[in-house]
Amino acid sequence: MSGMIVLRIVPFIGAFIALILAVVFTKLVNKKNRGNKRMQEISDAIYIGSRAYLNQQARIMIIFFIVIEVLFFIMVKFGFLEYPSLLAFATGGGFSIMIGYIAMWISTRTNSRVTQAAKEKGLGEAMNIAFTAASASGLILGVVALFDTALWFNVLFWWYGRSGSDLAVNLDHVVNILVTFTIGASFAAFFMRTGGGIFTKAADMGADYVGKVESGLREDDYRNPATIADNVGDNVGDVGGMNADSLESWVGAIISAEFLGFLAFKDSPMLLKSILLPMLISTAGVFASIVAIFIIKGTVSRYKQNATVSKLTSTTLSGLFITSLLVILFSFFLTWYIMGAGYMYIFYASIGGLLAGFLIGLFTLLYTDAKFRPTRNIAESAKSGPATLVVNGLAYGMESTVLPAFIVIISMVFSFYISGGSSNVQMGLYGVSVAAVAMLSVSPFAIAIDVYGPIADNAGGIAEMAELDPEVRKTTDKLDAVGNTTAAIGKGILIGSAAITAIALGQAYFSKIGLLTEKMGLSVIIDFMKDPKILAGLFVGVIIPFLFTSLLIGSVGKAANKVVIEARKQIKDMMAGKSKGDPKTFITIVTRAAQRGIIIPGILIFAIPVVVGLLLGPGGVVALIMGTLLSGFALAIFMANSGGALDNAKKKIEEEGGSGTPEHSASVVGDTVGDPLKDTAGPSMNILIKLISVVSIETAVLVVTLYGKLFH
Amino acid sequence: MSGMIVLRIVPFIGAFIALILAVVFTKLVNKKNRGNKRMQEISDAIYIGSRAYLNQQARIMIIFFIVIEVLFFIMVKFGFLEYPSLLAFATGGGFSIMIGYIAMWISTRTNSRVTQAAKEKGLGEAMNIAFTAASASGLILGVVALFDTALWFNVLFWWYGRSGSDLAVNLDHVVNILVTFTIGASFAAFFMRTGGGIFTKAADMGADYVGKVESGLREDDYRNPATIADNVGDNVGDVGGMNADSLESWVGAIISAEFLGFLAFKDSPMLLKSILLPMLISTAGVFASIVAIFIIKGTVSRYKQNATVSKLTSTTLSGLFITSLLVILFSFFLTWYIMGAGYMYIFYASIGGLLAGFLIGLFTLLYTDAKFRPTRNIAESAKSGPATLVVNGLAYGMESTVLPAFIVIISMVFSFYISGGSSNVQMGLYGVSVAAVAMLSVSPFAIAIDVYGPIADNAGGIAEMAELDPEVRKTTDKLDAVGNTTAAIGKGILIGSAAITAIALGQAYFSKIGLLTEKMGLSVIIDFMKDPKILAGLFVGVIIPFLFTSLLIGSVGKAANKVVIEARKQIKDMMAGKSKGDPKTFITIVTRAAQRGIIIPGILIFAIPVVVGLLLGPGGVVALIMGTLLSGFALAIFMANSGGALDNAKKKIEEEGGSGTPEHSASVVGDTVGDPLKDTAGPSMNILIKLISVVSIETAVLVVTLYGKLFH
Repeated sequence: MSGMIVLRIVPFIGAFIALILAVVFTKLVNKKNRGNKRMQEISDAIYIGSRAYLNQQARIMIIFFIVIEVLFFIMVKFGFLEYPSLLAFATGGGFSIMIGYIAMWISTRTNSRVTQAAKEKGLGEAMNIAFTAASASGLILGVVALFDTALWFNVLFWWYGRSGSDLAVNLDHVVNILVTFTIGASFAAFFMRTGGGIFTKAADMGADYVGKVESGLREDDYRNPATIADNVGDNVGDVGGMNADSLESWVGAIISAEFLGFLAFKDSPMLLKSILLPMLISTAGVFASIVAIFIIKGTVSRYKQNATVSKLTSTTLSGLFITSLLVILFSFFLTWYIMGAGYMYIFYASIGGLLAGFLIGLFTLLYTDAKFRPTRNIAESAKSGPATLVVNGLAYGMESTVLPAFIVIISMVFSFYISGGSSNVQMGLYGVSVAAVAMLSVSPFAIAIDVYGPIADNAGGIAEMAELDPEVRKTTDKLDAVGNTTAAIGKGILIGSAAITAIALGQAYFSKIGLLTEKMGLSVIIDFMKDPKILAGLFVGVIIPFLFTSLLIGSVGKAANKVVIEARKQIKDMMAGKSKGDPKTFITIVTRAAQRGIIIPGILIFAIPVVVGLLLGPGGVVALIMGTLLSGFALAIFMANSGGALDNAKKKIEEEGGSGTPEHSASVVGDTVGDPLKDTAGPSMNILIKLISVVSIETAVLVVTLYGKLFH
Repeated sequence: MSGMIVLRIVPFIGAFIALILAVVFTKLVNKKNRGNKRMQEISDAIYIGSRAYLNQQARIMIIFFIVIEVLFFIMVKFGFLEYPSLLAFATGGGFSIMIGYIAMWISTRTNSRVTQAAKEKGLGEAMNIAFTAASASGLILGVVALFDTALWFNVLFWWYGRSGSDLAVNLDHVVNILVTFTIGASFAAFFMRTGGGIFTKAADMGADYVGKVESGLREDDYRNPATIADNVGDNVGDVGGMNADSLESWVGAIISAEFLGFLAFKDSPMLLKSILLPMLISTAGVFASIVAIFIIKGTVSRYKQNATVSKLTSTTLSGLFITSLLVILFSFFLTWYIMGAGYMYIFYASIGGLLAGFLIGLFTLLYTDAKFRPTRNIAESAKSGPATLVVNGLAYGMESTVLPAFIVIISMVFSFYISGGSSNVQMGLYGVSVAAVAMLSVSPFAIAIDVYGPIADNAGGIAEMAELDPEVRKTTDKLDAVGNTTAAIGKGILIGSAAITAIALGQAYFSKIGLLTEKMGLSVIIDFMKDPKILAGLFVGVIIPFLFTSLLIGSVGKAANKVVIEARKQIKDMMAGKSKGDPKTFITIVTRAAQRGIIIPGILIFAIPVVVGLLLGPGGVVALIMGTLLSGFALAIFMANSGGALDNAKKKIEEEGGSGTPEHSASVVGDTVGDPLKDTAGPSMNILIKLISVVSIETAVLVVTLYGKLFH
């Protein structure tokens, strides 16, 4: 077992190294010039606004967490959960909030420095600073993901191992409690992501409409007091929310794989190894990301004056490629060393996962990059007005769901069968879940190339508000454009992995209830041809993402309306010289909207699996999980790509000097329609899908017991 | 058996009576004044354009039909189909095309008469004429639905009955061939509905944008040469397409119920009765519709001068209520008389169906009528620009999927269990399919209150183009508003019934392959937890409606673009006095677009079930059917209600005198975005859902045999 102990410590080593590098990178960034006094003031205002929002958000979350802890406590009392789950849930949420704060802090400390670099030294150095800061964010993600999963695993393993009883029994407790940990992380991420998403888009839509369309101001014009809220939004939504989202996905995938490893190897001597492997592949991902970050940082810092958008794009993308290759290499040796030559199928499954993530990302590019036909056609259709443009944007978004769905299907079927799923379903699903872990193990690098976009966006905002030379803004816009492209791939990986993880989690649920229902004499047939309750569960599942989308974008619409009304009033007063504008009002308006907007979804996420379980039984819950996955996946890709393509169509028109033309106004309308789709509702889908699954697992024993008592 | 023969003849009697009334109604309308020479010219131009379009459409359809007939012939040769199927397929298509032509003919002969009545005698008489014509359309639907199903049934029953062999064997052939008949009807309806939908919306979007937004002309302004195409579109899409769609739904539901009756009662003396019952309930629906039409016609004709929108709306809605009540009454006696007291559960199931259709319609109203919060809020959000308005429209559309989904789930579960599905699955599904028949048996009346909207729309167009007093247009607009409300209910019934029919058809497929797969030693487990092929099938199914929507609204977008470019040119020339405008060019542009737009969907509909079957096996096909149903249902309701609410939000702003304001422009953008959603893609979903099911059934034996040979 001593080899095992070494393996159990490896993730901590990975976390420690990543932490040191993250601190070094942050220090490097902090040494740079923050710019003139006005720039610093604006940057500070953004930081203060972001912190105020996150504090407010944390307050609401704590209330939610307390309520859920009480419910969990009751469940513990009745024997439906283990005690440590209570702590696991809280720490899962705590880590998620923490990473949101850290990422926000890094980006708000970096934004004006990027502006200054863009002003003094041009694109290359601006990119260098933004990428370094983003890398620090990505590394912190790696630190937290490795540290928290490994810590909980080791503590629980030690705790339950003390009794010296059967390994399988110990690990049963361990993985059960880890699921609660995931729920905490996912639930907090859901708040961070969707609350942030509502905040940022309500501010953005409102500010843009009054500023650009009505008052003819430029984006982020200093005379538009809603601008600060818009920039705060980037930090709390696209940075803080995105990091929490990635953490949730990654940790969720690791723990699902552990859970399925437990089910697949329950009676095998490989049990402990199969549970350690997902953590070790993740550690390999952190190391691979570190190597890639250094290579890309080195390359970028050599560009200096002759950096271009296309150079930077291909450099960052090749970084992702390097990371993936290294993960494959490391996974090969890890699987070989830990599991042995007889289990190399797990390695093949993980290649499938990595490839799938990469391909989904590339298809995203195909549909959202202005180099390709869809976005070009959308921009072209601006000639016949905003409606045709929006319709085209929606049409291409829907079309874009086809290829990623095929990739997920193929990857799922491949991972399942290569892992021997045709003779052993559990083993096949362990393979599927490891594929999801491999896909997500590149997360630190994915965040590094994802987060610098919003930082650049902020930097541009500061340039505008500080009335710097328009050239500075142009430079940061280029950086933003690179960021948009690479962020698209990151989003593809997140939704692809969510689909695969949810499939595995659905099975985990099914396995978990299997023994129980057998004991109770409940026969659970997951056959929608024989039991209409299964079809009903699928139906409810398919509708849920529609309901959540409507709630989320509805909140954005309502809040944006309020921002518009307030902004009109303030801009009018400012133009008349009556006031200097009051940016804080906007932050208050959108903070309130964001808080209100997540309360109902937050309650529903916990209520739906329980209600469906009580009405339709355990089979209905499995169907619910799958239904949510299916339509959530399709809607997520549809919304992300519609929004992305509409955004880039607008940028294309601007680049071609179309600003101020009717085509440009049409494209601004399109961009604004796409905004809440791609940045509020779309990204929340992957968390929704998984939360429905893990909450179902968490409440499984309770629900099945009650259902059995009520109806049988 | 002599009682049986009487029952077999009853549908013909119903058809005959309906036919006579339809002829009388048409003659009544044709006696009315067609208006001045200019009005007649415009009406003729619309008729000629519509006919030209339908002829062109028919040509393409014939090519498709020939190709499919050849494929079917090969299948017959290899023993996968019966010979009469070839004829059944052709006649199914033929009836569908025929009803499209007839309905178009009635409405184009009526439009200017409604204009004239609105001019001379006001709202009451205009409504009277429009409703009488629409009733004729509805009755013709009843004639065709009863006549063709009864004729085929009797001919086949006689043909296979000659041999004097076992009733079950005879009826097996009969229902198999009837399925092919449905495919013909559905496939033709798909062309009529989506081709017409592309035509009408491309013309509408293009004409509106250039006319209203760019050139400041009013809707249907005579100076906008794209207007004729727009009015042609109403007749080929909203009238011809809608009628073909209703025929397909109704006939499809009858035949599915017959198919499931066969499966449920195969070994019972009730076999023949169970197969006749759906036709008889439908006949009851025709009689109920006739009664309601007379009551409503009587009421409307008494209104004369003091007709108002709200009076007319509640009158027509109460007519639907009367029809439903009468169907319930008739069904009670029919079930009692034919099946006996022991089978009254079928009656309860049919009440469930009727109620579900009615409720889905009412929920549609809730989300699209300007009296209620959603549409009012959308109109309100016009204050912050087109983007917020569109976003709100999409959000409410998504929200609106929730209640109808619950209704379908409840109705399905209710009909299933009340029919004893818990002990006999086949019986439960027969109940579900009879529920769909009952829901659709009100179709003649539903068409009567659906088709007068487009007629009124045309009448308004003629008023505008003939430069009549604006008051005339206002009168027809009111009629149009009433029509929009009642049409919403009709759409609700169509999609609700499609969902329920598809569920039944999925089961029919499963039953059909059951014996075959058993013989071949293929085990088909419809358990997405045990076989990833099932999940893959569901996944493909869920994506298909997204793909079709993108293809259809993409075609509209592209064609609208062309219309805009041409209209700009022509309007410019006309304003400069260089030309008088050439309306025919527009008809050519949109006809071509409509034709091109349906080719790929047309091929895919046949290819997908076969390809999925060969790759994923019969279990995958069942999953495909269900996946398509689930997301198709959600998308259909989302798109219909988003579009409806956006349309009515615009109308509300116009009614409140907002024309010309920025709010109004915003609402025009919203309406235009909603147009292809609600009138092109949305309505095609219900046909898509069923076509995927029936094509799967048709190719089942072929696919299962090949799959078995290839993979086992």
